[in-house]
Amino acid sequence: MTYMKRTIRTAELEAPLPYHFLTSLVVPRPIAWVGSRAEDGTRNLAPFSFFNVVSSDPPMVMFCPVGHPLVRKDTLANVRETGEFTVSLVTEAVAPLMNVTSGTFHAGEDEFAEAGLTPINGSFVNAPFVGESPVALECVVRDIHEVGNGRIVVGEVVAFHIDDSLFDGDRIQSSVIGVVARMGGGEYARTDDPFSMVRPD
Amino acid sequence: MTYMKRTIRTAELEAPLPYHFLTSLVVPRPIAWVGSRAEDGTRNLAPFSFFNVVSSDPPMVMFCPVGHPLVRKDTLANVRETGEFTVSLVTEAVAPLMNVTSGTFHAGEDEFAEAGLTPINGSFVNAPFVGESPVALECVVRDIHEVGNGRIVVGEVVAFHIDDSLFDGDRIQSSVIGVVARMGGGEYARTDDPFSMVRPD
Repeated sequence: MTYMKRTIRTAELEAPLPYHFLTSLVVPRPIAWVGSRAEDGTRNLAPFSFFNVVSSDPPMVMFCPVGHPLVRKDTLANVRETGEFTVSLVTEAVAPLMNVTSGTFHAGEDEFAEAGLTPINGSFVNAPFVGESPVALECVVRDIHEVGNGRIVVGEVVAFHIDDSLFDGDRIQSSVIGVVARMGGGEYARTDDPFSMVRPD
Repeated sequence: MTYMKRTIRTAELEAPLPYHFLTSLVVPRPIAWVGSRAEDGTRNLAPFSFFNVVSSDPPMVMFCPVGHPLVRKDTLANVRETGEFTVSLVTEAVAPLMNVTSGTFHAGEDEFAEAGLTPINGSFVNAPFVGESPVALECVVRDIHEVGNGRIVVGEVVAFHIDDSLFDGDRIQSSVIGVVARMGGGEYARTDDPFSMVRPD
């Protein structure tokens, strides 16, 4: 079936429609629940769904704060100052607490305490991750690229923290983790009902 | 519940485990089905799951080919040469055809023809998108950043093609599109059974 699509020139769209289209169409987006510290040691935790892998050797990920009024800036200030952050994965069990940390907090407030989460400090970086998440990555900032009103923060993954229950030998099956992902508006996708395809040759 | 996680230093992992961990844990990843042209006009179509939004004003997305042996290089060569590409979304209906285009083809081969897909040329860029997809973006390359063995290709979205059936007024609900997303191994997530949360304040 071929779709008869409506063609919309971006230059003719008024805000907030470009943002709405991007966040409703580029889906589902994995969620980086980013832990960091201010220079005075204050812990910070905030979710970012502009997040993905960008290199496998060395292993690197990026997350991208954008200058949308709703997006908080503490994380970006912290990773610029300290060069370190963590990424915890968001399962359905902790999704409501992730949502709490997406609210507006003042710079001195500790979102771990506000959401009732257990901060565990990284073994190799001085940034906290979420005890209630089954997976966390420790990351060292390698680059920050300005693009439009976004900042691509590239981090090298120096360590993985993975719950024992997720391993099948030395392998991990994604759908066992129970991760959730961001879609447009307030919708979140689940990952526990996957289908499989075998890659050709 | 606090998880007792196993701590694994990346430096102690042997290939392909770093790649396996990244692609199994950073999930679900949205899929950019990237259409491009070689300088001689040959059409190219290949899926990339290292893909996300990076700016809302102007609207920009990135996709990231990495130097993994399984990842094809034609798309990167094309976007470097022409500075233009399209992104079609992958629904469950066309997922098997997306999978066909992830196979190994020679540079002169047209994946649209190989997969039996209808190429529709962009209105504003000289690159084809997939007629059988309900959504496509037309993009102009703004930056290519080298990071590790990846290349972050940043494109400004100059036009959207969206099927009429997806609109509710001037808005779009993500879960109506039926997009699928990449997880580790051969697993793909669905997006048609979402849950909702209201953002605080």
